[in-house]
Amino acid sequence: MKLNELDTPVLLIDQDALGHNLNAMKEIVSNSGITYRPHAKAHKSHDIAKLQLAHGASGICCAKLGEAEVLASEGIQDILITTPVIGLSKVSRLASLAKKTSVIVVADNPQNLEELALVGEKTGQIFNLVIEVNVGQNRCGTPPGAPALALAQMIQRSPWLKLCGLQGYQGSIQMRESFTERKTEAQKASFLLRETAKLIESNGINVPSLTGGGTGTSLIDSEANLLTEIQPGGYIFMDVKYRKIEWSNSTPLPFQQSLTVLGSVISLPDTNRAILDVGLKSISSDQGPPELMDMPGITFRFSGEEHGEVSWQDSPRLCQYGDKVRLIPTHCDTTVNLYDQYIVHSGNTVVDVWRISARGRSQ
Amino acid sequence: MKLNELDTPVLLIDQDALGHNLNAMKEIVSNSGITYRPHAKAHKSHDIAKLQLAHGASGICCAKLGEAEVLASEGIQDILITTPVIGLSKVSRLASLAKKTSVIVVADNPQNLEELALVGEKTGQIFNLVIEVNVGQNRCGTPPGAPALALAQMIQRSPWLKLCGLQGYQGSIQMRESFTERKTEAQKASFLLRETAKLIESNGINVPSLTGGGTGTSLIDSEANLLTEIQPGGYIFMDVKYRKIEWSNSTPLPFQQSLTVLGSVISLPDTNRAILDVGLKSISSDQGPPELMDMPGITFRFSGEEHGEVSWQDSPRLCQYGDKVRLIPTHCDTTVNLYDQYIVHSGNTVVDVWRISARGRSQ
Repeated sequence: MKLNELDTPVLLIDQDALGHNLNAMKEIVSNSGITYRPHAKAHKSHDIAKLQLAHGASGICCAKLGEAEVLASEGIQDILITTPVIGLSKVSRLASLAKKTSVIVVADNPQNLEELALVGEKTGQIFNLVIEVNVGQNRCGTPPGAPALALAQMIQRSPWLKLCGLQGYQGSIQMRESFTERKTEAQKASFLLRETAKLIESNGINVPSLTGGGTGTSLIDSEANLLTEIQPGGYIFMDVKYRKIEWSNSTPLPFQQSLTVLGSVISLPDTNRAILDVGLKSISSDQGPPELMDMPGITFRFSGEEHGEVSWQDSPRLCQYGDKVRLIPTHCDTTVNLYDQYIVHSGNTVVDVWRISARGRSQ
Repeated sequence: MKLNELDTPVLLIDQDALGHNLNAMKEIVSNSGITYRPHAKAHKSHDIAKLQLAHGASGICCAKLGEAEVLASEGIQDILITTPVIGLSKVSRLASLAKKTSVIVVADNPQNLEELALVGEKTGQIFNLVIEVNVGQNRCGTPPGAPALALAQMIQRSPWLKLCGLQGYQGSIQMRESFTERKTEAQKASFLLRETAKLIESNGINVPSLTGGGTGTSLIDSEANLLTEIQPGGYIFMDVKYRKIEWSNSTPLPFQQSLTVLGSVISLPDTNRAILDVGLKSISSDQGPPELMDMPGITFRFSGEEHGEVSWQDSPRLCQYGDKVRLIPTHCDTTVNLYDQYIVHSGNTVVDVWRISARGRSQ
């Protein structure tokens, strides 16, 4: 089957670009002393998680317990859940999951540690924990230093809790366009995490890993060697935002655009406008409108939940009825979250279909 | 089960508010000479479609062929697809669907009519069509007047095509806050549609129905009696945008908020801030951030795909670890599109679970 025979809108992965990106991240990390644990929040697919593991990843991250349950059921063995799992109901689900696969979860709150210890005692399950430290994102995370130490000591005191490391995620800097600014901020964040680890270790508690970072800081973190593990997500796909960042002082962005949305021209209201079957329900808008692939001079604007408008300056008419158009998402994670499957292609030929198995597993 | 025992984030429907809204729309329309065909793009649920039919709806609208296929498979009998179905692959699917259920589809393009006639001849299926007329939305739709007549004549000439009416949807005015402005614009749109119908009928072609309108103009269209059928969607749920409109010159908004997202406080970084497990992947952002239900003085901002931040001016701390918080979406359609099920509740008690059966059926 060829791409232009597909019903639209449809989410595409260019297999060759994906393969390139998998190799590129392997290369970046293999020259450093650290490991990488790719973040499945970007793709929500056990097929891609397995490809990442086959490319040297040390394990997989995901954002939610529900995602971890799906990945584990599909055979993924080593999973870090990067947001707190709170409440007795979810902690009990976590205990069941931990009996089947190696799972680590972040925590930043004493009440959460109490819940984990309680369920641990009840079920006989020891929980692997990473303390989340606020290194600048100002979202989740305990402050660095003494408050993190207090949590580490609380973990140390419980036979049902085991400290596996610290997490410090500076998400807001990942897409900072200037390389120098991004580097300065990334190193500030990693330094805070390392200082906190030192404090905890000086109190006799081992801190085996320091995890954090993303695609935008992957080269910086690999060279800095302050973290022990990075969590890149978007590198496999790229999107409009990531494509704009200055990768380093000397090398171009090593990743290719593998993720696109294919849409169709369904209506031709004017000679310089066409309406696509791609709207707010089939490509995400949270980082702005998507861009068109290989169609310079044509811009997209959202025109409702199921419609998008493309327009151009002058005649001749650049789109015809039924034309297929490829769009580059501005945010790969939230676009993937709208679909149930990827159509995988090589050039113009469809080669596979992968389920987005953890889509919608937001609990 | 009680609401505060649910894992979060979770999409809730207040059964009593939903029932109120179903009755309110029935009341609005039953006092007029027109019918209503609610739009399933808002809820994507055959359960709710059946409730709407039980409340006097003349049929159901949906935006996509894939949604119509799901609704038909769940027993919905009379479906209008409000965006063009283009290309031989989809038109063939439409022919199969039309053999099972009564389906009408909009069209605005001669090439689309040719495809429909071709597949009609091949499969022996007569297609029921509504011509979409651009009455101000400037999206899909043929211009009013002569171009619409040309399409009607093309339909008339084919034994495989049957004209069922005209559609004129002025979506952009539905949430116009001023009642007077909304009324003026709605009547302008309906007048254009009626004039076009007159032109077509004066050429000997019957135009049985004029369909259009939405929740925001439902009272106006019912009183004006220019359309024969309206397509309200959001009335069953309400959202932040709809709650702000001035309903009429004399009566308050007759609909209640039935749709909310329940989230949990998962982290407490400061005394005047808390982090929720509700981000871009569990409540839509295209119309801005959601509002909190029954929590004055607390505001929400998105803080990533899986996180939201709520904050307030002063101490004391207004949220505690584990607190459940209800959020009112700014856009019900795109929020529903993120979930696979509704949890239906009455007061604080869970009473049912409904699948969002047509979610993700964007083709």
